[in-house]
Amino acid sequence: MTKFGWLLAGAGALALTSAAFGQSAPAPGQTTDRAREAAFDAGVSSADQMAWMKEMASAPNHVGSPHDKANAEFILAKFKEFGWDAHIETFNVLYPTPISTLVEMVSPEKIVLGGQESAVAGDDTSGNTAAALPPYVAFQGDGDVTGDLVYVNYGMPDDYKALARRGIDVKGKIVIARYGVGWRGLKPKLAQDHGAIGCIIYSDPEDDGYGQNDPYPVGGARPPAGIQRGSVADMPLYPGDPLTPGVGATAKAKRLKREDAKTILKIPVLPISYGDATKLLQRLGGPVAPSGWRGALPITYKMGGKGGVSVHLAVKSEWSLKPAYDVVAKLPGAEFPDQWVLRGNHHDAWVFGASDPLSGNVAMLSEAKALGALHRQGWRPKRTIVYLSWDAEEPMLLGSTEWAETHADELKKKAAIYINTDGNGRGFLYAQGSHPFQHLVNSVAADVADPETGASVADRMRADIRVRAYDKRGKVDDDALKAAEKGSDVPIGPLGSGSDYSAYLQHLGIPSLNIGFGGEEESDGVYHSIYDSYHHFTTFDDPGLKYGAALSKTVGRVVLRIADADLPVTRYGDFADTVATYLTEVKKLAADRREEDRKREKLIEDGAFRLASDPLKPVGPAAVEPLTPHAELAVLEDAVDELKIAATRFDKALADRGATLDASRRVKLSTQLRDIDQLLLDERGLPDRPWYRHLIYAPGRFTGYGAKTLPGVREAIEERRFADADEYARRTAKVLRDYSARLEAARATVEGR
Amino acid sequence: MTKFGWLLAGAGALALTSAAFGQSAPAPGQTTDRAREAAFDAGVSSADQMAWMKEMASAPNHVGSPHDKANAEFILAKFKEFGWDAHIETFNVLYPTPISTLVEMVSPEKIVLGGQESAVAGDDTSGNTAAALPPYVAFQGDGDVTGDLVYVNYGMPDDYKALARRGIDVKGKIVIARYGVGWRGLKPKLAQDHGAIGCIIYSDPEDDGYGQNDPYPVGGARPPAGIQRGSVADMPLYPGDPLTPGVGATAKAKRLKREDAKTILKIPVLPISYGDATKLLQRLGGPVAPSGWRGALPITYKMGGKGGVSVHLAVKSEWSLKPAYDVVAKLPGAEFPDQWVLRGNHHDAWVFGASDPLSGNVAMLSEAKALGALHRQGWRPKRTIVYLSWDAEEPMLLGSTEWAETHADELKKKAAIYINTDGNGRGFLYAQGSHPFQHLVNSVAADVADPETGASVADRMRADIRVRAYDKRGKVDDDALKAAEKGSDVPIGPLGSGSDYSAYLQHLGIPSLNIGFGGEEESDGVYHSIYDSYHHFTTFDDPGLKYGAALSKTVGRVVLRIADADLPVTRYGDFADTVATYLTEVKKLAADRREEDRKREKLIEDGAFRLASDPLKPVGPAAVEPLTPHAELAVLEDAVDELKIAATRFDKALADRGATLDASRRVKLSTQLRDIDQLLLDERGLPDRPWYRHLIYAPGRFTGYGAKTLPGVREAIEERRFADADEYARRTAKVLRDYSARLEAARATVEGR
Repeated sequence: MTKFGWLLAGAGALALTSAAFGQSAPAPGQTTDRAREAAFDAGVSSADQMAWMKEMASAPNHVGSPHDKANAEFILAKFKEFGWDAHIETFNVLYPTPISTLVEMVSPEKIVLGGQESAVAGDDTSGNTAAALPPYVAFQGDGDVTGDLVYVNYGMPDDYKALARRGIDVKGKIVIARYGVGWRGLKPKLAQDHGAIGCIIYSDPEDDGYGQNDPYPVGGARPPAGIQRGSVADMPLYPGDPLTPGVGATAKAKRLKREDAKTILKIPVLPISYGDATKLLQRLGGPVAPSGWRGALPITYKMGGKGGVSVHLAVKSEWSLKPAYDVVAKLPGAEFPDQWVLRGNHHDAWVFGASDPLSGNVAMLSEAKALGALHRQGWRPKRTIVYLSWDAEEPMLLGSTEWAETHADELKKKAAIYINTDGNGRGFLYAQGSHPFQHLVNSVAADVADPETGASVADRMRADIRVRAYDKRGKVDDDALKAAEKGSDVPIGPLGSGSDYSAYLQHLGIPSLNIGFGGEEESDGVYHSIYDSYHHFTTFDDPGLKYGAALSKTVGRVVLRIADADLPVTRYGDFADTVATYLTEVKKLAADRREEDRKREKLIEDGAFRLASDPLKPVGPAAVEPLTPHAELAVLEDAVDELKIAATRFDKALADRGATLDASRRVKLSTQLRDIDQLLLDERGLPDRPWYRHLIYAPGRFTGYGAKTLPGVREAIEERRFADADEYARRTAKVLRDYSARLEAARATVEGR
Repeated sequence: MTKFGWLLAGAGALALTSAAFGQSAPAPGQTTDRAREAAFDAGVSSADQMAWMKEMASAPNHVGSPHDKANAEFILAKFKEFGWDAHIETFNVLYPTPISTLVEMVSPEKIVLGGQESAVAGDDTSGNTAAALPPYVAFQGDGDVTGDLVYVNYGMPDDYKALARRGIDVKGKIVIARYGVGWRGLKPKLAQDHGAIGCIIYSDPEDDGYGQNDPYPVGGARPPAGIQRGSVADMPLYPGDPLTPGVGATAKAKRLKREDAKTILKIPVLPISYGDATKLLQRLGGPVAPSGWRGALPITYKMGGKGGVSVHLAVKSEWSLKPAYDVVAKLPGAEFPDQWVLRGNHHDAWVFGASDPLSGNVAMLSEAKALGALHRQGWRPKRTIVYLSWDAEEPMLLGSTEWAETHADELKKKAAIYINTDGNGRGFLYAQGSHPFQHLVNSVAADVADPETGASVADRMRADIRVRAYDKRGKVDDDALKAAEKGSDVPIGPLGSGSDYSAYLQHLGIPSLNIGFGGEEESDGVYHSIYDSYHHFTTFDDPGLKYGAALSKTVGRVVLRIADADLPVTRYGDFADTVATYLTEVKKLAADRREEDRKREKLIEDGAFRLASDPLKPVGPAAVEPLTPHAELAVLEDAVDELKIAATRFDKALADRGATLDASRRVKLSTQLRDIDQLLLDERGLPDRPWYRHLIYAPGRFTGYGAKTLPGVREAIEERRFADADEYARRTAKVLRDYSARLEAARATVEGR
């Protein structure tokens, strides 16, 4: 369910080594066999990818649909054809599908809204929706409710504060939120927490409609009838099957009762188009919405909540278990068969899913074909390579999470990395993930040619960062800009959630990467709608699937260089520097919060909110909130200092003496470092969400897709759980010290002690 | 033609002394006679103002209309009734009125646009447009042209750079620009400079239509048919009659030929509504416009310029001279009859003008009535008070400028200050002007009660600044925020142009203030349209004209405290500190420019623009421009240091010893300081616009309304006239040193030397 937009907005962006194209310095222990990589490239074909995409996107392929199963079998057959040892592993997952969905305005007039999207000229599959599900969101709570409508903007916590200051609450009402900013599922969750009885979500044309480009089929942007489906499960609590948290959803698994599954909402929710949203919002009364709440509809956005528009919302679902077909394919490792390089992309979609997820899946199949060809020519990877085509990602990362939970013990013993892709686009390389791999990704980027310019994708990405900063387009990360200007490695962003890496990174402690191209495609406009089709993709997103091939070449190199490495390809100084940056951010956050709290208290005390308010359009004072105290961060500062020293020492030792290591020490070193990231887990997990155990990276409780780094501490400050801030500073310090100790032990191995 | 929006955006905002309401400390030499001020307040009446506004706004009153003349006579009669020595002074000014205006789309289909705005229910005068001029802009160049349309956003210099990078030029084409950001007249001027043959300007609903509030008559925002009239003369070159730059437009004045008047455009221009603009813009092709170019119309904004939409534009005007009736009224000074306190507001409008300008004019009449009553009770001001109700402000500050030019010699010898108001609104006090008067304005603000809250207008303004900053609404000036938080005097902004102070401040060197209330009114939505009516004003802007009364009480106190002061009411340290701030800004501007220039050059050199460009939507490199060198600013830094010392010394001397001064020294001091601001003029004027002679404050060449401070230096850097930067650093240093020398002489007077 990845979208490039939020990835880019999330944090840093990948960039690139200084080296001229094709001349990059290898990472410390990197085994770069250029001849082999050239042979690999020769096996990658855009034409293959187009044919596979056309076939797989030819019919609706949501979880449980016949074409979803057919696609799994198609993928399985391909792996086998390419010479892989492959099978399908099936899980039985809770996946509700709609029996009936109704949304209608009942006052001031009766207008029925919703229903399936209509076919458009030139897009063959858009008329082929007989087997498709109607627009809906998965894991909402069935119900039949009628109530006054309140517009809540993006439906995030600050939006409710703005409503409260205008005397509007949503208790007993139905909210309408626009897509964007936070994870989809947070919108109804927060509405429910505030007492709303139902929730409607719509796509404002400012965000992905005519505000961005001509609507499909003239351009690639969302047409007035386009609707974004998706999951609204409480992903930041835990992903995977709501009935089997922490364990695999196998046939014999013990399951929760549905009403006890905390990730399922209690209130009904439906998504609608902006065509329909206009009918509701243009009739809404109440205060004029603040400027940040206004989208691109030709209306005066108002907050409602004072009567005027009433809505009837009713959803009924079929709640049986459905099969999820994960395709698992292996090439066994010759030297380290029990060190696994995992690489995955899901194959299920909401409807046809040409962009999301098939553009990534066909790139993965291209890699598999090219690796299979190398294998036939006699190449044997040193480590075992495991390719994974997940099912049921869309509802809540089900296929990947259940596989991870089922094989947790083995994975903890064997997995060296998990490399993810999802829908791909046209434009610039981006990557996020575990920072010891930052330099590897940068090195690979310097060696792959950009299809549009012929430059390296590294050089192109660097140019993009610099030109965006010069043109003042969006917010460009300072560190990324500096690195792009200097030509040094550009930081990769941290991983939040929203695609299949989550269980591997945040639950099992397996270092992960998420990679793709984007920034020039227009798939946002058809995201999770029936218009995400082969026609749309090949017209507006990646004509000729040239970037599909570039993605294969990029990820293939990452896989090859890790699988065949004699020495670690990681650079721990990058990780230590990044963690230090996060700590600086957290300290700034706390200081800014203290300042803001103090100002707010003074404003309340002085009656300034009352004085500044327009009596004809009153806005009340901000609510009283506890002041942010100083958190006890010294222990964490010391641990980060220690990490920096240990990391620098290790990197230097490896650079100085790595080449001289004998085989037994190389094996020992590889073993010591394979699972080092698992030391970053805390068995207790994050406060109130124990499934998430990683103390460096997590999806934000109130962002979802967006990452929160040092989450135990950072979110405690943000959410005013001040005791947790101190507690998690200690816990985070501990895992970092354990990590440093392991680095020191690894250094001893390198230094022959 | 003032609008609150740009005033607030311009720079700082007035705020307020720390003193509790009614307890403010007087300015150094301030004579605050609280009993007299209370008596003055008793003479101010909102009911009067409503009656006068209703009468004056009952018919179209543009320059040359019968009702404009009737209003002048009505105002004259009022002054006389109030006991003032009053007369009308008439000028003969060039003022073109339209004979025919035509704007139509000719391709891809023929649609006639334009024409008079239609009546709306509930607004009586909106149907009374028989005597009104059709929507047009004054001082455009007549012509009849047909050409392809190009959308140029706000039509500012950077917009043309963005077009050029997308391969679009406007040569031989007609541009359509939206209102906002820069002075109206710059839009066609820059279009003409870039080779366009015609210009259309429209009001985007994002800026003052449904993007802000419900359109009139449901709310106060601009309705789809609303059109902003206005002047498009080249105000930043010189204001006033285009035929008589620098001299009064009296009957016998020597006049330029019209074709030689540089402030008149050469290309035809018309304003249109957003209803009409939609018809053009929705058909426009070419590249999708950058995000900052997108307004609130329900379309994908494009740049055009590649054929597609052709427009026919034809304007023919009647170019005869018209009479402008300035009303001049005096109360003679008892002690310093030859020191004049000038106070003005214009009375002409584009149509009915209830908000702009009559809301300010009736506040001024209220002051005149209250002062007249004091006079009848025996009070005699120490200095002569001159009230001025200007005609012909709207076309180009004609009435005020011609009067200033006609009486320049006398004014230079007598004027102590010019205090201006224009359209008034509801909400918060704002003030801009000459910084020696900053403390006086702050002191007055502490003594006037806000009509809505009962607090002082100072406290309310301070609260507004703090809450806007807390709520992150718009950009709040750091210094203003700090002052509001501390309770110290909040900085007043500098004056650019757009109302009648311009000739007094920037041409004659008379210190000036511009004062009003705003921030809660909705008059932006009817600005310069037929809907700026008594109904609109009393419904959406200032119901009951309570803020009209507050304005009278504020300005009345400023007038009284200056007119009756025994000792200077000025504080020169405020001026010195402000000039120092401006110099810091200029240095930062130069440093930022150097940095940006260096980055741009490197990006061009590296081919980064090419690499970052999407080949399917190409954006070319930024143009090569000369690098910004270091300007020779040391001489100016020294002069500012000197000024700070001289100002601090003078203020201290006055505070310490002012009370002990005998009458002859008081007279000498008053004489020494009355014309001190004239020392800030440079007879050569600003580069290429000699009419503007003030070296501290000017309207920006490329902003118009917005001020440029230290303009000789600042604009030289901005416009890459690097030799001018050095030259004007020297010239500005010289006028500041002269100013310091005068302060030193005045200190000698205070110290009895």
